[in-house]
Amino acid sequence: MMEEALIITNRSIVIKTHINGFPKETDFELKSEALSLNVEPGSGHVIVKNLYLSIDPAQLNRMKSYSTSQSHHSIQAAAAAIAPGSEIRGHGVGKVVASGDPEFQEGDLVAGELTWGEYCLMKPGVFYFRKLDSMGLPLSCHVGTLAYGGMTAYAGLFEVCKVKKGEKVFVSAAAGSVGHIAGQLAKLHGCYVVGSAGTTEKVELLKGKLGFDDAFNYKEEADLKATLRKHFPHGIDVYFDSVGGEMLEAAVANMNLFGRVAACGAISEYTGSGRKAAPDMVEVIYRRIQIQGFLCPDFLSVHSDFISATCDHLRSEKMVSVEDISTGLESIPSSFAGLFHGSNIGKTIVQIAVE
Amino acid sequence: MMEEALIITNRSIVIKTHINGFPKETDFELKSEALSLNVEPGSGHVIVKNLYLSIDPAQLNRMKSYSTSQSHHSIQAAAAAIAPGSEIRGHGVGKVVASGDPEFQEGDLVAGELTWGEYCLMKPGVFYFRKLDSMGLPLSCHVGTLAYGGMTAYAGLFEVCKVKKGEKVFVSAAAGSVGHIAGQLAKLHGCYVVGSAGTTEKVELLKGKLGFDDAFNYKEEADLKATLRKHFPHGIDVYFDSVGGEMLEAAVANMNLFGRVAACGAISEYTGSGRKAAPDMVEVIYRRIQIQGFLCPDFLSVHSDFISATCDHLRSEKMVSVEDISTGLESIPSSFAGLFHGSNIGKTIVQIAVE
Repeated sequence: MMEEALIITNRSIVIKTHINGFPKETDFELKSEALSLNVEPGSGHVIVKNLYLSIDPAQLNRMKSYSTSQSHHSIQAAAAAIAPGSEIRGHGVGKVVASGDPEFQEGDLVAGELTWGEYCLMKPGVFYFRKLDSMGLPLSCHVGTLAYGGMTAYAGLFEVCKVKKGEKVFVSAAAGSVGHIAGQLAKLHGCYVVGSAGTTEKVELLKGKLGFDDAFNYKEEADLKATLRKHFPHGIDVYFDSVGGEMLEAAVANMNLFGRVAACGAISEYTGSGRKAAPDMVEVIYRRIQIQGFLCPDFLSVHSDFISATCDHLRSEKMVSVEDISTGLESIPSSFAGLFHGSNIGKTIVQIAVE
Repeated sequence: MMEEALIITNRSIVIKTHINGFPKETDFELKSEALSLNVEPGSGHVIVKNLYLSIDPAQLNRMKSYSTSQSHHSIQAAAAAIAPGSEIRGHGVGKVVASGDPEFQEGDLVAGELTWGEYCLMKPGVFYFRKLDSMGLPLSCHVGTLAYGGMTAYAGLFEVCKVKKGEKVFVSAAAGSVGHIAGQLAKLHGCYVVGSAGTTEKVELLKGKLGFDDAFNYKEEADLKATLRKHFPHGIDVYFDSVGGEMLEAAVANMNLFGRVAACGAISEYTGSGRKAAPDMVEVIYRRIQIQGFLCPDFLSVHSDFISATCDHLRSEKMVSVEDISTGLESIPSSFAGLFHGSNIGKTIVQIAVE
C-alpha cells in the first residue's frame, strides 16, 4: 500500500518530431508517465521536483534531424541529440523529494541538467547536478545570471577576449540572457559598450536601466555595416556574438587591428532562415582578427571568480538580472518558440513549481 | 662631367590603372626614369641594385581601387595602397651601389622593402631594410623561405596554432610559398600532414620530394567536405589557410574540438571571383574553433628562433626550399598574374640581376 502511494504522474514536454526551421508550439506535446518516488537506498538515484527551468535557443540544435552525410559530430560533442518523445534535458533548479544517494537529502536545493518536466530522475555520474546554495539570491538568478548565461558572458569577455578597460565593445542580442550580462560586465570593467536588439522596448532597457553607452534596433537599420560605423567611429575592439549571420559580417567589417570575436551563439543561423556569416577573410587577415567559438563549461577554472564577482554586483545592485519568467510546464513550448522571434527580454525561464 | 656619369636610367614595373578582378600582364607597364647614383654623404639615402624580388599575391590587394564608402582601413594598415604609375614596393634582396648612410657600404648585400625595378632608392626610417648575411645559403632563399614565406609558416604553426606533435594538419595552397614550408615544418614537428594543390605535378611534389603524408588536387574534387573527411577520418586539428572561400568552409566542417585555423591568405577571395567563406558558425561554436588572421611581422620576437631552425633544416636537407624563379624585370607581370592561376610552384621570385 505504501509503495503504491509513492507512484506519481510526471508530466513533461517532448518533441513530436525533429524540428527543422523555426520551432512552433505544435512541434511539442505533453507526455504523462508514472514515476516512482520510492528510490532504493544506495541506488544513487535522486528524484528532483523541478522549480525553475532554463529555456535556451541552442537546444534547437539538438532537436534537428541530421542526415548521415552531414558532419554532425560537433552537435553530439556539445550535447546528445534529442529524440521525439524522449526527455529533454536542460539546466534548472529543483528540490530533492527522494534520494537513494547519501550525498543528497530530501529538501536539498539542487541545480543541474534537469528535464523539461515536473519531476526528474537524476543519476549521479550520468547527469550533472550539485547541491545549490542560493546565497540569499532568488532561485531564478541561479538559472540564468549565475549559471550558463552569466558564465558565458564572463568567460567570453575576460577569458576568450581578454577585454581591457577602455576598449570598445559591441554586444548583439544585447537584451538576451547572455548579452545583457556581457554588456553590464563590460561597462563595469570600464569599456564603451553598444548593444543591438530587436525592439524599441529592449533598446530603451539597454540605454536606461542596464547602462549601455548606446543601443540600436537592428530591425530598423538597412545597412548594418554603416550603422556600426556610426556607433563605433574608432572601430570595435571586442564583439560579443550571439547572433552570427549578417551581424557578424558587419562587426568584422568594423573591427580594429587585433579585434576579437567571442562567438557563443548564432541564433540567426539555427533556423536555417538567415544567411550564414561570410566575414571578409581579407579583413580578418590584415586586421589580425580572432574569431573564437566557445562554450562556458571550458572555463571552470574561473567559475568561482565569476560567482563571487557576479554575486557582489547583484547584491550591490551594480548589475541587474533581467528575467522573463512564465509559469507552468505548459508554457515551455511558447517560451521556447518565442526565443526565435525575439519575444523574450533577458533570460527566458519557466517556473514549474513554487518552492 | 663626373656628375653626369652617375645618372642612370632605372626601369621599373608599375600598374597602368587600379586592378579589380584577376590581374593581367597588360595591367602593367614598364616605366623608365633617370636616377642619380650620386648620393650626398650623410643624406641617409642608399641606392640599391635589385637582385631578387619576391612576387606575392597579397600585393593585389594594394592595387585595387577602393570607394570611400568601403571600410578599407585594414588595407591601409597592412600596407599603403599602390597608385597607378608609382613605385611598387615588395620584399627583395639587393646590393648597395651608392650610400649616403655610414651604416651601409657599397657592395653590401641588403634585404628589405625594395621596388619592382632595377634599382631603388632607400631612405632608412621610411622603408625597412637591413644588411643581409647570406649565411652560405643562396640569395633566393632569403626572399622566400628565410623571409616572409617561411616566417609566416613558422609563426602560423607554432605561435598562432601552437601545433603539437601528432596533431593532424591540413595545408591549402600547399605547393605555394608559405604552404610548402608550413607542411614541411609540421612534418618535422611530428604531425600528420595533408596538402591541397591545383595540379598533378604539385600533388606529386608534395607526396614525393616534400614528404607530405598525402595530398590531393582540389580541382578534381567535386565535394571538398567529403574529400577532407576521407583524408582526415579523425578530423583536422590545425588548418593552415592561404586560400579562404570554399576550402575554409570545408576545413571548418572537418575540424576537431578546439581546432585552430591560421589564416594568412585568402587568395581565392582576392580577385572577387570565388565566393567568400561562410564557415558554419554553429560548428565553430560547438567545436570551439579558433579562426585567427595573422601577419608574420607581429611575431618578431621569435624571428631569430625561426632563422636558426630553418637554416638548420635547409643545411641538413631536411627541408627543401622550392623556388619558381623567372629572369628579368619584364617577367614580373606574367609571374604576378600567374599566381592567380596557380602557375607557380613554390616561392615566386624574379631575378633582376646577377650578383
